[in-house]
Amino acid sequence: MIKSLEYIENNKQRFLDELFDLLRIPSVSADSKFKNDVRKAAEFIKQKFDESGVDSSEICETAGHPIVYAEKIIDPSLPTILVYGHYDVQPADPYDLWDSPPFEPVIKDDRIFARGACDDKGQFYMHIKSFESMAATGELACNVKFMIEGEEEVGSDNLGLFVQKNKEKLKADVILISDTSILSNEHPSVTVGLRGLSYLEIEVTGPNRDLHSGVYGGAVGNPLNTLCDMISSLIDENGRVTIPGFYDKVEELSDEERAEMAKAPFDLDEYKKDLGIEAIKGEAGYSTIERTGIRPTLDVNGIWGGYTGEGAKTVLPSKGYAKISARLVPNQDSKEITKLIIDHMQKIAPKHVKVKVTPHHGGEAAVIPTDSQGYIAAVKAFEEAWGKTPIPTRDGGSIPIVALFQKELGLNSVLLGFGLDEDAIHSPNESYGTFNFYKGIETITWFHKFFAEKEN
Amino acid sequence: MIKSLEYIENNKQRFLDELFDLLRIPSVSADSKFKNDVRKAAEFIKQKFDESGVDSSEICETAGHPIVYAEKIIDPSLPTILVYGHYDVQPADPYDLWDSPPFEPVIKDDRIFARGACDDKGQFYMHIKSFESMAATGELACNVKFMIEGEEEVGSDNLGLFVQKNKEKLKADVILISDTSILSNEHPSVTVGLRGLSYLEIEVTGPNRDLHSGVYGGAVGNPLNTLCDMISSLIDENGRVTIPGFYDKVEELSDEERAEMAKAPFDLDEYKKDLGIEAIKGEAGYSTIERTGIRPTLDVNGIWGGYTGEGAKTVLPSKGYAKISARLVPNQDSKEITKLIIDHMQKIAPKHVKVKVTPHHGGEAAVIPTDSQGYIAAVKAFEEAWGKTPIPTRDGGSIPIVALFQKELGLNSVLLGFGLDEDAIHSPNESYGTFNFYKGIETITWFHKFFAEKEN
Repeated sequence: MIKSLEYIENNKQRFLDELFDLLRIPSVSADSKFKNDVRKAAEFIKQKFDESGVDSSEICETAGHPIVYAEKIIDPSLPTILVYGHYDVQPADPYDLWDSPPFEPVIKDDRIFARGACDDKGQFYMHIKSFESMAATGELACNVKFMIEGEEEVGSDNLGLFVQKNKEKLKADVILISDTSILSNEHPSVTVGLRGLSYLEIEVTGPNRDLHSGVYGGAVGNPLNTLCDMISSLIDENGRVTIPGFYDKVEELSDEERAEMAKAPFDLDEYKKDLGIEAIKGEAGYSTIERTGIRPTLDVNGIWGGYTGEGAKTVLPSKGYAKISARLVPNQDSKEITKLIIDHMQKIAPKHVKVKVTPHHGGEAAVIPTDSQGYIAAVKAFEEAWGKTPIPTRDGGSIPIVALFQKELGLNSVLLGFGLDEDAIHSPNESYGTFNFYKGIETITWFHKFFAEKEN
Repeated sequence: MIKSLEYIENNKQRFLDELFDLLRIPSVSADSKFKNDVRKAAEFIKQKFDESGVDSSEICETAGHPIVYAEKIIDPSLPTILVYGHYDVQPADPYDLWDSPPFEPVIKDDRIFARGACDDKGQFYMHIKSFESMAATGELACNVKFMIEGEEEVGSDNLGLFVQKNKEKLKADVILISDTSILSNEHPSVTVGLRGLSYLEIEVTGPNRDLHSGVYGGAVGNPLNTLCDMISSLIDENGRVTIPGFYDKVEELSDEERAEMAKAPFDLDEYKKDLGIEAIKGEAGYSTIERTGIRPTLDVNGIWGGYTGEGAKTVLPSKGYAKISARLVPNQDSKEITKLIIDHMQKIAPKHVKVKVTPHHGGEAAVIPTDSQGYIAAVKAFEEAWGKTPIPTRDGGSIPIVALFQKELGLNSVLLGFGLDEDAIHSPNESYGTFNFYKGIETITWFHKFFAEKEN
């Protein structure tokens, strides 16, 4: 891979410039007013595939945002890597908390600041540049297929159907995804577990109109107070979710497995200092790494209702809203949990309000076997590029398509992510280290080599 | 008063046209972007005073929005009525719930629809038109002073200082205010009690930035969940506020007094049907009329935090906010209660968040003596204009300046309001009946006559 690495070194600035062009396109999938920008991003990626030396590329329409597909088959007898990524990004608001505009990327302290810098534009784009480097230097070791979708941040609703309809086209030996983090640049790691997701929106309606809180307050149930009561009741004093059946299928790890997890480097004081908090909070009886790795949880992601402007308004509002989501662990079925939550919310709704619960999207948890060929190639690639053996970790986040690929294509995924906690994905001032961007391209390139060796 | 009533009848359309001009000015005191409109409203009112026959009028500057003052002294030996009103209005949002734009008044089903139609532009303007009618026909029976402020909806912060500084100028025998409601057009009433107010904004801060709920959820305290916990804990299962000391000074009414209150016409089924609710909710052991009249309460007026846009965002937000207010009854001191709430919120704040509580504005509860000359004149005025004896009621709303006037000027207020519940003040589609507008002008005119008779 010497020539490829040289090629990468010689084209560093251009690789970054191209990523910047992609980051400038506000491809926010959740908000329909960015619909044209999402398509613009898809077209940009197709063009970059064409310039990088693929055999063919196409924009595949779906009922929602399109999927960009490309491939290069150098030899049908060689193993095939299917790269998955997503070109859509989270909404960037609140805009006023960004130090620089979210869609005008800048470099500061060796970090790229922009919405999508890490999640996932900066990460999937490494694969295109690694591929270009190997293709240009004749060092491609595997066949490569790319499937870059535009709906990951809204639940990948149309990816399942696309995968089902294109099983032949997507045939491969492994799925390779860079959409996760490493523990730190000193402690590189590979994710071997992901949590699932159940996401719902709750609408609580009290009176049929906003009321004067002086005239009606105390006599008419306030939907905001009631929404708080309902949400508050969902987690008990031990940090456990109170929804009946919620933990029924959660697997308890053995003492040995927990001891293994406890070996991951973790400094609670550093953690609290980084987040600016005086105390952590979570389920009693579990460590922070366990709480985010192997335990399900429930969070309010948004809440609103009544008067939220400047000053004071004495209103007893008609409606209150919240978005809540549960992170799930292997064996918990997201559809089942979603139903449990909906039923429970209806059950605890007091008579003085009407409660409507709408599911947004869900996804299943996944575990990656550490004895798989892909995982072993990932370990070797890290050892070569970073000079260190990566630590296997279980992440709190969800990439629902990992479970989908296992089910529909019978393929394991390798989660070769290079993000860091400090990247602040989904937050204002999202960033991605330039070190991680270039080191990621190098690691991916080594992965191709080791995956080819292992297969043959 | 025959000539005055004739004059009113002959100028009905013009009176309404003038009110419409005033309603077109969006004098929202809470929102600084309407600052110029608030001043425009003050100037409009001064001009109308000048046209109505006052001796003098002026726009009095304050640290905030100005106060419009006008007077006509026909004979220093006659009694003097000081009319109080406010020309500022509540914010009109949510705009999309209005059937017609809030600052483009329209008549529909004999009702004036506009922000401020009832609260308080439609009501205080009746006094200017009643005055004009009496002045034009030589039937003025009392001296009249007007003090129309522009900060009632934001706590009348600068009125206290104005009153203190102008005690001589404001010397009068009674304060007359139309900023309350009657039970119904079939059951006219006069308010003899008002609740006080304590209004606060709460900011709960968890981590120092928005986090990915997958990566941190379950391990880091979520400020929105915590805000819900804190709010939920403020009211117990009996509907009682749990803040220590909150009820300490609340006066319990005697069985006789409660029996008297229970005589007011009230139909629970009608009440629920009107509000579109299946059940009411309030403090155990008290009736709806008691809950809104003689009992203090606590409501969330607004709540917000996290992602509130379209679709789903898996964020564990840094901050959550709520506006809460307590309605107070006589003897409860609003400053004292505000401090109790602030202290309590700090006390119950868990270690994983920081809590900041900012008081907005407060006001004291008030009771109007039914044996006062002003109250007796109000009863006679209703009997003359409506053919019915009004029912004395205790209202849930707050007019903090009533307590202020008692303290600073030693004057009782008469609450000669003509609103109805269906006017939906503070809500979208606020309205005011044209019947109530004209009948109010007539009642006010009779009040002047009876107040003059009584005094002499």
